[in-house]
Amino acid sequence: MSKTLRIIPLGGVGEIGKNMTALEYRDDLAVNDAIIILDAGMMFPEAHMLGVDLVIPDISYLLEHRAKVLGIIITHGHEDHIGALPYILPRLNVPLYATRLTAGLIQVKLKLNKVRDAVIEVIPDRAAFQLGPFQIETFHVSHSIPDGVGVAVTTPIGTVVHSGDFKFDPNPVDGAMTDFAKLAELGARGVLALMSDSTNADSPGHTPSEHVIADTFARVFALSEGRIIIATFASNISRIQQALDAAARFNRKVCIVGRSMQDNVRMAVELGYLNADPQRFIRADEAEHDTSGQVVIICTGGQGEPTSALAKMANREHKQVTLRPGDTIILSASAIPGNEEMINKTLNNLFREGATVYYDRFLDVHVSGHASQEEQKWMINLVRPKFFIPVHGEYRHLVMHARLAQELGYRRENIFIVENGDVIELDDHTRGRVLRQDVSATDVLVDGIGVGDIGNVVLRDRHHLAQDGFFIAVLGVNMRTGEIVFGPEIETRGFVYEPEAESLLEGAKQVIRAATAASAHDMGLSAALKQELSAYLYKTTHRRPMVIPVVTAL
Amino acid sequence: MSKTLRIIPLGGVGEIGKNMTALEYRDDLAVNDAIIILDAGMMFPEAHMLGVDLVIPDISYLLEHRAKVLGIIITHGHEDHIGALPYILPRLNVPLYATRLTAGLIQVKLKLNKVRDAVIEVIPDRAAFQLGPFQIETFHVSHSIPDGVGVAVTTPIGTVVHSGDFKFDPNPVDGAMTDFAKLAELGARGVLALMSDSTNADSPGHTPSEHVIADTFARVFALSEGRIIIATFASNISRIQQALDAAARFNRKVCIVGRSMQDNVRMAVELGYLNADPQRFIRADEAEHDTSGQVVIICTGGQGEPTSALAKMANREHKQVTLRPGDTIILSASAIPGNEEMINKTLNNLFREGATVYYDRFLDVHVSGHASQEEQKWMINLVRPKFFIPVHGEYRHLVMHARLAQELGYRRENIFIVENGDVIELDDHTRGRVLRQDVSATDVLVDGIGVGDIGNVVLRDRHHLAQDGFFIAVLGVNMRTGEIVFGPEIETRGFVYEPEAESLLEGAKQVIRAATAASAHDMGLSAALKQELSAYLYKTTHRRPMVIPVVTAL
Repeated sequence: MSKTLRIIPLGGVGEIGKNMTALEYRDDLAVNDAIIILDAGMMFPEAHMLGVDLVIPDISYLLEHRAKVLGIIITHGHEDHIGALPYILPRLNVPLYATRLTAGLIQVKLKLNKVRDAVIEVIPDRAAFQLGPFQIETFHVSHSIPDGVGVAVTTPIGTVVHSGDFKFDPNPVDGAMTDFAKLAELGARGVLALMSDSTNADSPGHTPSEHVIADTFARVFALSEGRIIIATFASNISRIQQALDAAARFNRKVCIVGRSMQDNVRMAVELGYLNADPQRFIRADEAEHDTSGQVVIICTGGQGEPTSALAKMANREHKQVTLRPGDTIILSASAIPGNEEMINKTLNNLFREGATVYYDRFLDVHVSGHASQEEQKWMINLVRPKFFIPVHGEYRHLVMHARLAQELGYRRENIFIVENGDVIELDDHTRGRVLRQDVSATDVLVDGIGVGDIGNVVLRDRHHLAQDGFFIAVLGVNMRTGEIVFGPEIETRGFVYEPEAESLLEGAKQVIRAATAASAHDMGLSAALKQELSAYLYKTTHRRPMVIPVVTAL
Repeated sequence: MSKTLRIIPLGGVGEIGKNMTALEYRDDLAVNDAIIILDAGMMFPEAHMLGVDLVIPDISYLLEHRAKVLGIIITHGHEDHIGALPYILPRLNVPLYATRLTAGLIQVKLKLNKVRDAVIEVIPDRAAFQLGPFQIETFHVSHSIPDGVGVAVTTPIGTVVHSGDFKFDPNPVDGAMTDFAKLAELGARGVLALMSDSTNADSPGHTPSEHVIADTFARVFALSEGRIIIATFASNISRIQQALDAAARFNRKVCIVGRSMQDNVRMAVELGYLNADPQRFIRADEAEHDTSGQVVIICTGGQGEPTSALAKMANREHKQVTLRPGDTIILSASAIPGNEEMINKTLNNLFREGATVYYDRFLDVHVSGHASQEEQKWMINLVRPKFFIPVHGEYRHLVMHARLAQELGYRRENIFIVENGDVIELDDHTRGRVLRQDVSATDVLVDGIGVGDIGNVVLRDRHHLAQDGFFIAVLGVNMRTGEIVFGPEIETRGFVYEPEAESLLEGAKQVIRAATAASAHDMGLSAALKQELSAYLYKTTHRRPMVIPVVTAL
């Protein structure tokens, strides 16, 4: 009987974000056919995706084969692994499998998005269970959030291991190290393919332990007399724990500011993933009226996002917290590419308010949650797969990760560098091949209520409008006589400043009248108007607004 | 007789870019009044300046006082110091003073922009000359371009020193160190105010010597068997020299690709600022047909700019150079904030082409041309001014630079942290004060032919259009009967994908008909249509396109 295992990346290869991988088993008895999904993440829009709120994976293949899909295993609670759930669960409606903290973060997120009736099976971080033909084993990995796992999936063809987001942190904040023993055991049993986190494939050496932040916090806390404000991601539970630890050590009260941060902290404290004395917490109004300075405020804004608490404080727009001289701010984050301008703007505004600000340019306020090259080699060496598949990274990271595997002796033909929508097909003779772009895996853009209705045409128009605006001419023409009955009326925005462009607009009207006189009897009046107007406007301004004639034939 | 010296930053404080400072002398005998200008730079548009080509300083104050302006002294040939010249020289038309290489770079730029009749006085890098009441002395500074100077301006009130862009490079590529002796001499003579480069005020320690790049190039050259492509700024003459040196050492031919790079290299070789054996250069077609691999291509693209040679090569769009496996690429630059996404995209495409790529994440391919904190302290300690004015930096850099001065014993009241348009007024009792926003210094945006005609209104519209597009409804209404005579016709772009939005458009037409029936007799029909349509579209999509009703009353 011929059997096939198909590994289908639907997100997260060739990009940092919206991670999703489908594993599909097929054999001659089609009754066994089944699919499981690893992760369901979102991604922030790239700069060219104007006006888009967020990006999620394309699940059309999964919807087509809905009957085969047995469930989604979530490796950990970061947005790039859970953020698509509110959009895809209502359509796919399959059970979720996640560890306790991850399940808690998913519940907070689904509630916020008013998604009900999700089935979430809570699993331990060293779980083993069967889903159809897939035997699932999870193993703990250290990352910048507790309770993260990697996944080993054993099928009749062999075992596939997915590393999850990992580092080999020798001193993780929650005390739980990446499960060397399980990885070694899997390696000893024999692994067909390893998918491994490539994020830092361009970083030599080892990623520092999350624990170095404790030293940084201690140094800053020792120096600061006023309030301390720490900005980080709401899901960065390990960082929040270190802020709480520093507050306890230096006997400061703690105020959690912002909805997402509060929801996550409350949930993590309840589940026992954050260790804090409840007496230490104070409300924002108490932090605001405090005069002792012995206060720590923890909030979002590590990326300078305009909607974050920190950016609002920097702009004097935050309802609860007003910055004052003597405040010390720690931006405990590193920039996600594309966010640098937002971060710099927020930093400048914080300095304007007279705050002392620490950021990554001159202090270790952040460490990565992802393995560097030497750790990536460890992962490969422990698991010793037949096939190596770098995942979770931009294309260059995948290539550099592949080169690391080659340094370890892997032959190029046993390494699959793939992109979203490629299918890696492994057969029961442990042969592998790639079917390029075999499955639809386009970026699905979310804008307002619309999911997936914004495509290249709309984006191209937005880009055109952003560059040079539009120029619309409205006129009514008697098609028999060629006479202009009303208009031309001009509406233009984003092109020129109208009050100062009188002669330009008058010139445009003359162009319209001349073109109408020449072409009114043609079917092609609109096309002629568009061409003549575009040429006139370019000649006059060297700009190319979107030109739209609206001709009413009377 | 009362005398006043006014220091007027018109660009470059509170931002990195478009440097320009005016120094104005006034006394009771108005006949002596005079202005000189230091630098005339441009800046790349910030992300929110949609569709803008570049940004230059506001010279309206200088035009108002045109008769007093004696000249522009240019400190060095980088874009942020010379880039505004093609736009302001035709309007201001005053002599330029610059060292030889700087003058050469200005000439290349003016020629490219078809600006003729500029008067450029070439000065040595240790010059002394008189302009009206100003005695000008320049002194050499090491930077990432040769022939850079700082400026000391002595007036009847005292001496103001401007550092220029500097570092204390102990081993500069051109062998010319920052002129310690002159700085010490100025300090001994007594300096009223120092304006000093704040770019790296958040970098502890010393900036590495430009010479470390020689080691990096040697390592890469030693490892590479195919062609080597080095991307950097066309004005980075020191980096180009190091690439030429490495090529000579490893006996490779050199191909300069791209107009701006070729113009600058030709000029710098002619003036003796680039040292290269003419026999070593080959043409692009020779580099393309070379099979030895013993070739170095030097081109632009260190910021991943889509119009640069490197980005075109990465996209397979370059007319002369086609990448091939075995090519090695060095991105000899660090990202200017805001450019990270472009750089990453170019990097990924280069990896896709099979190239080996070195960039700053894992190799010292770039060093800054600006002083770090310890060097900034040296500058202050040598010059020992009465007043300290941090310039050339974002607001946070100015604040951190000011804090360095405070560490050195300066009192806060002797430090002026200013923004463009503030005026620092020093009197003959060596008292100083700041007149906040006393002079117009807005960003002047260049878009196509237009200089300064794009303002906040146009930018706000472009931003709105970029987010959600527009929705225009055209209709003719008989204002007596309320009957719709023609239309409604709808034009929408950047909002929804029309072919899939039939029901939305139909719904919008119903809203228009209902609103017209209710309000046709009012003067407020357009306003009512706008409000009703906006509400309907938001309810249906959660997007807010720009809604414009065009009602023709018949």
